[in-house]
Amino acid sequence: MNGVASEALILDAWQANAQAWERAVRGGVIESRKLVTDRAIVEAVLSRTPRKVIDLGCGEGWLARMLAATGIEVTGVDVVPSLVDAAQKQGGGSFRVMSYEDVAAGALHERADVVVCNFSLLGHASVDGLLAAVPGLLETGGVLLVQTIHPWSAGVEPYRDGWREGSWAGCGEGFGEPAPWYFRTLDGWMASFRGAGLRLVDLKEPIHPHTGKPASVIFMAG
Amino acid sequence: MNGVASEALILDAWQANAQAWERAVRGGVIESRKLVTDRAIVEAVLSRTPRKVIDLGCGEGWLARMLAATGIEVTGVDVVPSLVDAAQKQGGGSFRVMSYEDVAAGALHERADVVVCNFSLLGHASVDGLLAAVPGLLETGGVLLVQTIHPWSAGVEPYRDGWREGSWAGCGEGFGEPAPWYFRTLDGWMASFRGAGLRLVDLKEPIHPHTGKPASVIFMAG
Repeated sequence: MNGVASEALILDAWQANAQAWERAVRGGVIESRKLVTDRAIVEAVLSRTPRKVIDLGCGEGWLARMLAATGIEVTGVDVVPSLVDAAQKQGGGSFRVMSYEDVAAGALHERADVVVCNFSLLGHASVDGLLAAVPGLLETGGVLLVQTIHPWSAGVEPYRDGWREGSWAGCGEGFGEPAPWYFRTLDGWMASFRGAGLRLVDLKEPIHPHTGKPASVIFMAG
Repeated sequence: MNGVASEALILDAWQANAQAWERAVRGGVIESRKLVTDRAIVEAVLSRTPRKVIDLGCGEGWLARMLAATGIEVTGVDVVPSLVDAAQKQGGGSFRVMSYEDVAAGALHERADVVVCNFSLLGHASVDGLLAAVPGLLETGGVLLVQTIHPWSAGVEPYRDGWREGSWAGCGEGFGEPAPWYFRTLDGWMASFRGAGLRLVDLKEPIHPHTGKPASVIFMAG
């Protein structure tokens, strides 16, 4: 399958599984999120003491709400209307339906101290296009925070960038077909940041308390 | 065992195994070096087109010789007199017996476009002290290159910085007791670079052609 078709399948899968996803996130179904990664991304954002945050791929809005509750102004962006709708109903931020292509094309006329992508960078060309737009979304001294699957714990072979089969394993009930996702090695992430005119500032490896291994990686680039 | 004792054991082991090491390196005994990591570090250094290179923990000097053969001025530093002696006999650089503590204390009055540490950062406090001295060894725009065991392929548990049992496995015959070594997570390396006033510029993951997995990681910091 080519990249364009895979990118389209990602959008299809999120449209089709938005309700199941909203239930999974709000019900705290995904163990690694509840135990490790939710707190890790919140702490990473708060460590920058931002006045304004842009949450790209905000989904049903939990992170935006959490940050807004501390007084931060948050704009959440997602391509799935029903997730944005769910986020808006709960409040705690300003939410907009927008694709990564829209953002890449300059449709988001805002700047923030932190742009955050929490497990929301799943594609290839769509992600590289989005990342290239990030410098234009950052205030001076602002940073991009990306939390994603740790390239090592992905357990995918061979160890090189490429499309992989997806799965909803661990997300609970009610999900349909998963979408493919684009695996990136550490090297691959570095190249993507560099290609976007960003430079890695820091990297965190939140450790899963049960396995003792990284549950994710958080890149800070600016 | 405490850190001070472990650091001392590293020096003891290299003093005791210098001859076996010289044979292993010159005989091309260590497969991952021959197949992947030797070339990877040479390419990483040459990518900077340096005029001058400092090789910290140069051992018997193969890297210094290789770089000198391309016209680069190289100073090699190692704490083991017999290895420095072996390096000097082959020529291709200027070699000096010096401990990392000496370098950390400012004993090396030189600057280079590239400071390279090829599998030579094995300790804890000794390495952090050395790294802190690196900015003072770099010309403007210069970089540090560190090739080391890839934190994932180390297969050490738990995934956190700490002393580990060493091994000469894969190095061939004639080795005595191995020394402990200080394992660093990616997170740990980032913290060490930051603590030294350095910032990661790039990262490479040379892939082993047989396993398809990273044979090492190369950090570029400046």
